[in-house]
Amino acid sequence: MSLAPEPPALTGTLTAALRAPAREAPVSGIVEIMKYGRARGGVMGLWAGEGDTPTPAFIIEAANRGLAAGETFYTWQRGIPDLREALARYHTRLYGRAFSADEFYVTGSGMQAIQITLAMTATEGSEVIIPTPAWPNAAGATGLIGARPVEVPMQFGNAGWALDLERIAAAINDRTRVIILVTPSNPTGWTASRDDLHAVLALARQHGLWIVADETYARFWYGDGRRAPSFLDIMAPDDRILFVNTFSKNWCMTGWRMGWIVAHPSLGQVVENLIQYSTSGVAQFMQRAGVVALDQGEDFVTQQVARARASRDIACDILGRTGRCRFTPPQGAFYLFFTVDGESDSEKLARRLVDEAQVGLAPGRAFGKGGEHFLRLCFARDPEQIRDACERIARVL
Amino acid sequence: MSLAPEPPALTGTLTAALRAPAREAPVSGIVEIMKYGRARGGVMGLWAGEGDTPTPAFIIEAANRGLAAGETFYTWQRGIPDLREALARYHTRLYGRAFSADEFYVTGSGMQAIQITLAMTATEGSEVIIPTPAWPNAAGATGLIGARPVEVPMQFGNAGWALDLERIAAAINDRTRVIILVTPSNPTGWTASRDDLHAVLALARQHGLWIVADETYARFWYGDGRRAPSFLDIMAPDDRILFVNTFSKNWCMTGWRMGWIVAHPSLGQVVENLIQYSTSGVAQFMQRAGVVALDQGEDFVTQQVARARASRDIACDILGRTGRCRFTPPQGAFYLFFTVDGESDSEKLARRLVDEAQVGLAPGRAFGKGGEHFLRLCFARDPEQIRDACERIARVL
Repeated sequence: MSLAPEPPALTGTLTAALRAPAREAPVSGIVEIMKYGRARGGVMGLWAGEGDTPTPAFIIEAANRGLAAGETFYTWQRGIPDLREALARYHTRLYGRAFSADEFYVTGSGMQAIQITLAMTATEGSEVIIPTPAWPNAAGATGLIGARPVEVPMQFGNAGWALDLERIAAAINDRTRVIILVTPSNPTGWTASRDDLHAVLALARQHGLWIVADETYARFWYGDGRRAPSFLDIMAPDDRILFVNTFSKNWCMTGWRMGWIVAHPSLGQVVENLIQYSTSGVAQFMQRAGVVALDQGEDFVTQQVARARASRDIACDILGRTGRCRFTPPQGAFYLFFTVDGESDSEKLARRLVDEAQVGLAPGRAFGKGGEHFLRLCFARDPEQIRDACERIARVL
Repeated sequence: MSLAPEPPALTGTLTAALRAPAREAPVSGIVEIMKYGRARGGVMGLWAGEGDTPTPAFIIEAANRGLAAGETFYTWQRGIPDLREALARYHTRLYGRAFSADEFYVTGSGMQAIQITLAMTATEGSEVIIPTPAWPNAAGATGLIGARPVEVPMQFGNAGWALDLERIAAAINDRTRVIILVTPSNPTGWTASRDDLHAVLALARQHGLWIVADETYARFWYGDGRRAPSFLDIMAPDDRILFVNTFSKNWCMTGWRMGWIVAHPSLGQVVENLIQYSTSGVAQFMQRAGVVALDQGEDFVTQQVARARASRDIACDILGRTGRCRFTPPQGAFYLFFTVDGESDSEKLARRLVDEAQVGLAPGRAFGKGGEHFLRLCFARDPEQIRDACERIARVL
C-alpha cells in the first residue's frame, strides 16, 4: 500500500502468489489498441462493440422514475418479476411461440451471463470449444474457471465464413464439456443457418455437451425476418442449451451492464445461487429501464438495424473498391471483418490506421485463431461517419 | 423450453449434467425465511442487511445527471478515474495517510469484490479459512471456485465474541490459501482489535496466506473514532492483503450493486482482467453517484451511524430485559445476534416470530458453525421501529 515508486521485486512477489488462472488471464487485445489511439487523440474509434448513440431518452426516463420511487434496495436475484415477464413477452413476439417468465434470469451484463453459464457447465480441467474468430471474452472467462478454451478456426473462402464441423467434431474428446457458439458472430458477421444449428446440436447431443448460445446480435440480421435463426427454433425442452444475451446492442445500453440468460426453469435455483454469489442481482431502477426497452423499444431497434444496414453497405462498397480489402458482406452483427492484401500484421496495420487515417479498428489477433490477419470495423454509426472513416482508410491503403 | 408442467426425470437430467460446484452451491438461508415471511405479509423484515432508508436524493441526482449527460457507454474496467480518485481521498481522510487512485478498483458490488479477490487467490482444491458466524456469501463464492470453505467457529463467552486464534492456526495446512476476515462482523458485531489484526497477519505471513479483509462495516463502529481498526493501519506494502468494500451500507445503496477493492497497484492488470471477464465494469452514471457519496456524504454517514447506535441501545435494552436473550452488545456493524434460552432451533424460532410477532429475523444457521442457535436482527432503522419490533419479540418470548 505504499505510494512510493514500487520496487520490481515486490511486484514479482505479490503477482507470483496469485492463483495461476488469474495471473495468466489475457489482456484484451482490443483494449490495447484503444489505449494506443486514445493517447494520440482525434481518432474515430470503431474498435469497440458499440456505436455513438447514447441510450434513448424513453429508456433513461424509466430509470429516473425507479430512482425517484426509491427502488434502491436489494431485489430478486433472478430479476424483478416485471422484467422477467417483459422478457417472456419479447421472446414470445420474436420467436413465435410461448415463453414463460421463469425461463429468464436477469444478469449484470451479457458478460456475466457467459461467466455464470460457464460456471454451470465447464469443470476445472475440462475443455470448451469455441469456433473462432470470436469475441475474446468467452475464452477469457473459460480460462478463469480453470478450463481450457479450445479454438477451432472457421473457414474463410470465396463463399464467406463457414463453420468447420469436421474440425469441431475432431476437437471433441473426453474432457470436452461445452461448445460456445456466437451467432450472428462478433467479429465476422457470419450467422448460423438452421442447418448449422442442427449440426452443432447433433454433435452436442451425441457427446452430451452443453451449448452456450450467445445470440446477442440476433436482431442485427440482414437476411429475411426480424431476427437471425436461433437454437430456440430447433431445440427440444431437454436439450443442454443455455442462452446468453444483453440489452447492450439492441437498445444502445452498453454501459448499463445488464443482460439475461434463457434456461430451463428446472435450473432456476442454480442460476439464482450463481447470481447470489457473483453480484446478487441487478439494480431495480435499471431493470425498470429494461422493461421499457423490451416493451416500447421495437421502433428504436428497427431504426438501429436499418441504420446499421445502410452503414454496412457503404463500408462494403468503399473498402471493396480499394481492390486490396478481402471480406464477405456480414450477414449479421455490426462489424466488417476484413484483410488487406500484403498486410499480414494486423496490430501494426491497426496502429498505422490510427496514425495515418485517424480511424481506430480492432486487430484480428484479439479474436483468436483464424483472425490474425484481419481488422474489425464497427459500423454501428451514422452512415455518413462510416463513409468518412472508410474513405480515410481507403486513402491510406 | 417447454411451458408444459415439467416431468421430474427431465429436471434430474439437466441438473445432473451441471458442474458439481454449481449444482451444490447452497441456497441462502436468509432468503428462505424472507420467502416464508413475505408469503404471510405484514411482517417487519429485519432479516436482510439493509435498513429502510432509500438512497439520499443528493446521490440519486448525481446518477440522473450522468444519465442525462449520456454516460451510457462502455467505460474503464477499473472504474472511472474520478471515482478512483474520490476513493483515494476518502481513504486518505479516514485512515490518516496518503492513498493513490491506482490502489482502488470499482466492482459491481462488494459481493463481486469477494468473488474477484477469491478468484485471484483461492486455487481449485485449496482451502479458505472463514471464522464463523459469518455472512454466508463468502463461503458460497469459495465453493463455486472449487475451493473448500473451512469454517472456524469463534468463541462466545461472557466477554463476548472472540477470535479463536489457536483453532485458526490448527486449521492451516498445505492446502490453505486464504483467510477471510469480516470486521466489524456481520452477524455478530464483533470487531477485530489491533491485536487481533496483528495476530491474524502474523499467521498469514508465517504461512504465506492471503487475507481477504471485508471491512464493509468499518464506519458502523461504536467505539472511539470514526471507524473500526483496519489492516490498513498495520500492514506493510508487500503484505498479501486484498480489501473488499461496498457503497451499500454507508450510503444506503444496497440495491445499486457497487463496491470496491483495495489492492497493491502491481496487481492492477490482474484485477482489471478479472473485472473484464466478469461484468467488464460498472455503469458510468452509477459511478458518478459514488463520487458524490464519497465526497459529500460524510454528514449522511454520521447520521446513519448515530441512528444505528440509538437503535442498538434500544434493542439491547428491551431484549436484555426479557431475561431470556443472551448476547453481547455489538461493537460494530448493525446487527444484534442473540440466543434465546430454551430455544435451540433458530429456524423454527424465526418462523414463530414471523407468525406471532410479525417480525422477520435471520436464523443463525445461515451464518455457519457457531451461529446455529442464534437469531440476527438488523437494527439499521428508525429507533422507534426497532423499539416496536423488539417489544413484540419480547412479548412472544
